[in-house]
Amino acid sequence: MSIVSPLKGALSALILVFAATLAAAQQSDPLPSWTAGDTKQAIIEFVAAATDDTADAYIAPEDRIVVFDNDGTLWNEHPMYTQLAFMFDRLKALAPQHPEWQTTEPFKSALAGDMSGLATSGEGAVAELLAVTHAGMSSAEFSKIVADWFADARHPRFDRPYTELAYLPMLEVLDYLRSEGFQTYIVSGGGIEFMRVITEAVYGIPPQQVVGSVAETKYEIVDGTPQLTRLPHLAFNDDKGGKPVGINTAIGRRPVMAFGNSDGDMQMLEWTSAGPGASLVLLVKHDDESREYAYGPADGLPESAFGHLSQTTVDEARTNGWIVISMKNDWANIFAPEAK
Amino acid sequence: MSIVSPLKGALSALILVFAATLAAAQQSDPLPSWTAGDTKQAIIEFVAAATDDTADAYIAPEDRIVVFDNDGTLWNEHPMYTQLAFMFDRLKALAPQHPEWQTTEPFKSALAGDMSGLATSGEGAVAELLAVTHAGMSSAEFSKIVADWFADARHPRFDRPYTELAYLPMLEVLDYLRSEGFQTYIVSGGGIEFMRVITEAVYGIPPQQVVGSVAETKYEIVDGTPQLTRLPHLAFNDDKGGKPVGINTAIGRRPVMAFGNSDGDMQMLEWTSAGPGASLVLLVKHDDESREYAYGPADGLPESAFGHLSQTTVDEARTNGWIVISMKNDWANIFAPEAK
Repeated sequence: MSIVSPLKGALSALILVFAATLAAAQQSDPLPSWTAGDTKQAIIEFVAAATDDTADAYIAPEDRIVVFDNDGTLWNEHPMYTQLAFMFDRLKALAPQHPEWQTTEPFKSALAGDMSGLATSGEGAVAELLAVTHAGMSSAEFSKIVADWFADARHPRFDRPYTELAYLPMLEVLDYLRSEGFQTYIVSGGGIEFMRVITEAVYGIPPQQVVGSVAETKYEIVDGTPQLTRLPHLAFNDDKGGKPVGINTAIGRRPVMAFGNSDGDMQMLEWTSAGPGASLVLLVKHDDESREYAYGPADGLPESAFGHLSQTTVDEARTNGWIVISMKNDWANIFAPEAK
Repeated sequence: MSIVSPLKGALSALILVFAATLAAAQQSDPLPSWTAGDTKQAIIEFVAAATDDTADAYIAPEDRIVVFDNDGTLWNEHPMYTQLAFMFDRLKALAPQHPEWQTTEPFKSALAGDMSGLATSGEGAVAELLAVTHAGMSSAEFSKIVADWFADARHPRFDRPYTELAYLPMLEVLDYLRSEGFQTYIVSGGGIEFMRVITEAVYGIPPQQVVGSVAETKYEIVDGTPQLTRLPHLAFNDDKGGKPVGINTAIGRRPVMAFGNSDGDMQMLEWTSAGPGASLVLLVKHDDESREYAYGPADGLPESAFGHLSQTTVDEARTNGWIVISMKNDWANIFAPEAK
């Protein structure tokens, strides 16, 4: 037995220990698409305290309600909201049945993709386009139309189905929080029946945990069969001050954690932050033009018609100690790799 | 050893077997307050098939949504809805601050308990009384007022807290269904924020599984603190055709099982019954004047201002193969015994 053997043995043992530690660290990282840093650490520390019944910031399981805005927070919202892309495609699909649209605004501009023409048609234009594309059928028929659209439609820049444009770091957060006993809710200005078609498959969020804008709906018997008919106006607009109201109606408990990305989320974040116990509030900032998009106009980012994030909102976030997530710096990946 | 000993031994063994069988039978009966018969059997057979993945009537766990009306289905609603009893008590509590009520209708009649005077004040009268008692405060303040009322108020006939007047057979159904993987929801015309104060303690139903009528609510910052303020009109009336609409908004799935007791539940029962798969629909008939109340007017029962059940509804139930529950015959107990 040479003198080298014990050393080699010790070294082998050390290597084994190191490898095991590394493997454990990799396995135990619940957020692999988040870069190491303050943001990731804040999320993990909040969850660790929330689930430690000896901690001051412990949160009882029934109160572990976490709310996520959808567009721009859980998935991509540029160059336009996914639901608007659906609306334009739907208009095109319906156009042959409506020859008068070729000469009538706002349909003419919408069909031509003329956004400035659409803008001059005024505020009611989008409402009118939404009405003809989103109402006048049963809820079941609408769900089928939306599902068919999602099966075929592809994002113009990324050339992938819209359902693949959920942010991978956020999918990890959803899984992580659920594994720690949090109930994950979507609270979005988007249409509730539009989102529900895909929320379970994309986010693991069942329909009863989706809060959104609601079309006025009428129960009626058609040819002897009960149906829910979608009417051409909103019963509830789940945006801005509507978000805390929607949360109160649907959940009846105040969230302890909230993720948003725009001015429309401000009131939901405020409401969460003002709760009696521990809370964590996060704001996604789109500052990664090369991997996704960059828009604000907060912090000198370009202006945006969708997902407007003002300096006021970002300043309030910083004053209140909320976390501003930089997509560029905090996210190692944006989307899951494409399946080959 | 005498000849008696083996006999004694055999007898002891028989007695033990009998006692064990009885105990097992008692343990395995999930609905001890339901008398043996067709109704109890139908519920148990439906649940057995729904949870047997080899059965035609199997229901996947995520689709095991069951909805319960509250007033008259899960708990007592006579001589008036519990929320109306709260309203009258609240009026009395507020009266000293409103001397003008002594001479102004509908307050004068309401404070005097003059129901016929109230009736002549017309349809808007109750809305006006609800407005002054249910609005103008934050959601949190309202919950506190309701909780304080429930702590003190007692039912005029049974002299028990209202929260003890849940029907024991229905509490057993709730537990039984949850133990078999069903999600239990309340879908009631009652106020959602009134009910949520007690639904978890009384029924084991958390706030996010309560669907009800919703007061218009406004998010605002008061003295620097975000609050939800209740306004004096309804945003959503969860009754009749509103029930399927409320279910669709809150749950986004069609129920497979529904319990109601009055004409106001008809559309919810129809909607459940018309689903694509197996369903079970039940209608509670109040035909037990001695232990609770008897009212209809269906099947020759007395007329009632609360929980009106018409012959049309009962006939439709029978035509559709729904189960009409007779409180008198199907329920061995109505309420849990009083704690001494």
